[in-house]
Amino acid sequence: MNYNQIFDQAIDRLHSEGRYRVFIDILRNKGAFPNARCFHGHNGPKPVTVWCSNDYLAMGQHPKVIAAMEEALHDVGAGSGGTRNIGGNTHYHVDLENELADLHGKEAALLFTSGYVSNDATLSTLAKLLPGCVIFSDELNHASMIAGIRNSGCEKRVWRHNDVAHLEELLAAEDPETPKLIAFESVYSMDADIAPVHAICDLADKYNALTYIDEVHAVGMYGERGGGITERDEAAHRIDIIEGTLGKAFGVMGGYIAADRKIIDVIRSYAPGFIFTTSLSPVLVAGVLASVRHLKSSSAERDGQQAAAQRLKDLMRESGLPVMDSTTHIVPLMVGDPVKAKRISDILLAEYGVYVQPINFPTVPRGTERLRFTPGPAHSEEMMRELVAALVEIWDRLDMELREAA
Amino acid sequence: MNYNQIFDQAIDRLHSEGRYRVFIDILRNKGAFPNARCFHGHNGPKPVTVWCSNDYLAMGQHPKVIAAMEEALHDVGAGSGGTRNIGGNTHYHVDLENELADLHGKEAALLFTSGYVSNDATLSTLAKLLPGCVIFSDELNHASMIAGIRNSGCEKRVWRHNDVAHLEELLAAEDPETPKLIAFESVYSMDADIAPVHAICDLADKYNALTYIDEVHAVGMYGERGGGITERDEAAHRIDIIEGTLGKAFGVMGGYIAADRKIIDVIRSYAPGFIFTTSLSPVLVAGVLASVRHLKSSSAERDGQQAAAQRLKDLMRESGLPVMDSTTHIVPLMVGDPVKAKRISDILLAEYGVYVQPINFPTVPRGTERLRFTPGPAHSEEMMRELVAALVEIWDRLDMELREAA
Repeated sequence: MNYNQIFDQAIDRLHSEGRYRVFIDILRNKGAFPNARCFHGHNGPKPVTVWCSNDYLAMGQHPKVIAAMEEALHDVGAGSGGTRNIGGNTHYHVDLENELADLHGKEAALLFTSGYVSNDATLSTLAKLLPGCVIFSDELNHASMIAGIRNSGCEKRVWRHNDVAHLEELLAAEDPETPKLIAFESVYSMDADIAPVHAICDLADKYNALTYIDEVHAVGMYGERGGGITERDEAAHRIDIIEGTLGKAFGVMGGYIAADRKIIDVIRSYAPGFIFTTSLSPVLVAGVLASVRHLKSSSAERDGQQAAAQRLKDLMRESGLPVMDSTTHIVPLMVGDPVKAKRISDILLAEYGVYVQPINFPTVPRGTERLRFTPGPAHSEEMMRELVAALVEIWDRLDMELREAA
Repeated sequence: MNYNQIFDQAIDRLHSEGRYRVFIDILRNKGAFPNARCFHGHNGPKPVTVWCSNDYLAMGQHPKVIAAMEEALHDVGAGSGGTRNIGGNTHYHVDLENELADLHGKEAALLFTSGYVSNDATLSTLAKLLPGCVIFSDELNHASMIAGIRNSGCEKRVWRHNDVAHLEELLAAEDPETPKLIAFESVYSMDADIAPVHAICDLADKYNALTYIDEVHAVGMYGERGGGITERDEAAHRIDIIEGTLGKAFGVMGGYIAADRKIIDVIRSYAPGFIFTTSLSPVLVAGVLASVRHLKSSSAERDGQQAAAQRLKDLMRESGLPVMDSTTHIVPLMVGDPVKAKRISDILLAEYGVYVQPINFPTVPRGTERLRFTPGPAHSEEMMRELVAALVEIWDRLDMELREAA
């Protein structure tokens, strides 16, 4: 038994498929987003423009968020010092859970250390509590939902992406008395499309299924108050559990679920991933509180983001770049090859000071490798024009085809 | 199928067993640890002394930690904005991983969002990569290790707590060619004892097994530089993977592993719980960097904690309180009943301004419910005497037996 040999083989597989990951080492410049310093393969830091951040609205740099974190840091200190049950339940946590429950029009909410953990812990715990539960999962659900479903040990039925006819077929095939849970996302981050929420809820009503929606790429960004697609589509009351993140549009870190009091109490009481972990630092929680409250009343960031995304999609399409169909704020550009995707990204960073990460398997299926741009309210028209010109030059250099201009 | 009824039954079970958890709502007072404000069931905040924090050395309030976090907050902002691979790899993360690798004398280290996630992600991924792997797990291993082992899908053999003869029996029963992984903790937090690290490593050598040690209750607190029990016992080089937390003695939040470069690269490349999650906020990482560096050169906090723990154990023993055997900084007081443990804790909070959480199932086995005190360098002789006097009064009030004074 040679352990090193097995580990070597595992790493070699990644190299040979062209998907070994190299982390780009950066520091953002507060107050000058999307600018950053890059420490990667250069002599000292070099300025770059970040085009792939999930701090979609630049709230991680918002003066209200920074001020709230600074105040908490000086009032109570760095960490919470314990699990929620043992010393780590601060008044900030209680306030934020109330604020998030209100955001989604739910009775209660529950914080987790990340969105990944909130999906994994909630789905695995909920399904385990329901004897013989069958979980219906959209085929493009995020890795953290897949982990939660797998860890529940329940039967799983995978429905074709956003295909409600297929979902109904699978629901109808089960015993009416079997507990059922439908798990899906609102905004799919890599394909940039949106789930038909009401149609799915209609099926949940018809077949008496619980509904679980992941809104991590929508909270803060859609709806009058940033309640996500379920707010925009007036569907929040039809969903049993809404899951969100505090690390993307809200700009900080952490995850949560919102639901009725009973469901929250069950997850709070039974989920090991919630119970046995140090709670979020109160400094982070204070920052998120300020961020959520701001985005409940201000739509300027949301509007700016939507305008920037539309503008970049238009510019790319006009230049013949293979921008994928997107009805969201995400702008994916299809490459279809892991080595080329990495090569384009490397040239952009080295020659143009543009930072955009190539998206390879397992994040997306093999053969659909892409670049994924996330323009926000702080990306200017000039930055967009420079980016598109750079991409056209590289497409040409690598002998890749441009489409007929639209 | 009535979902509400099932959820009601799940909650009712907790009430009927006396282990429904009520979170105590507090805010610590920076600069005055272990003092805090309690918002629980009172009109407005009330001062309390915290006796159950895992911020063991009060580093969450250390001026160097606070200053480093404030600087990072103003330099780069609140959150990282992405996964480690997509926009969320900051220079702070790189520096901290180097610092932690050095702390344990390893080639590399890897950060996770929590200690729970580091155990779950590493154990499940590592074992999955080794075909037919069998995992040997101490029966008192933490819930997060159990989750990782279960989620690996591998065969598991549970050895009696700290019983190396039993471990050898189980190892010897397996095929020599079977990949093997021995997973254990150094300091067991609820029983306050320490693993025989060298004896376990001897068995690992003899049977060609990988070793994984959880040092979350030891890093920062044992060894010349805070490298944990493996540093104190000069065993770090014999362990393949050392896992630690940034949320206890280091006072902030997060988790990590340290190992040779190859193992780190494999986990980094294959663990979904590492890949698909927003990285730690750079503000937290900056704070931990300051904390780890401070505790590498200062032993004052460690010495103060050991002295406080010894003093409290002596005072409890002299008063006939049933303090459990402890060779560590943790002071567990056996109660043996979930309702009584909660009752004592409630009286301490309401009448004495003492906050210590009752520890019930599933954190400890049924029938061994206890109170768990974590005295630190900031708990004074006066606080200890007041605490012990309060406990003796409550023991008497509840007709519980005191032991013959030692």
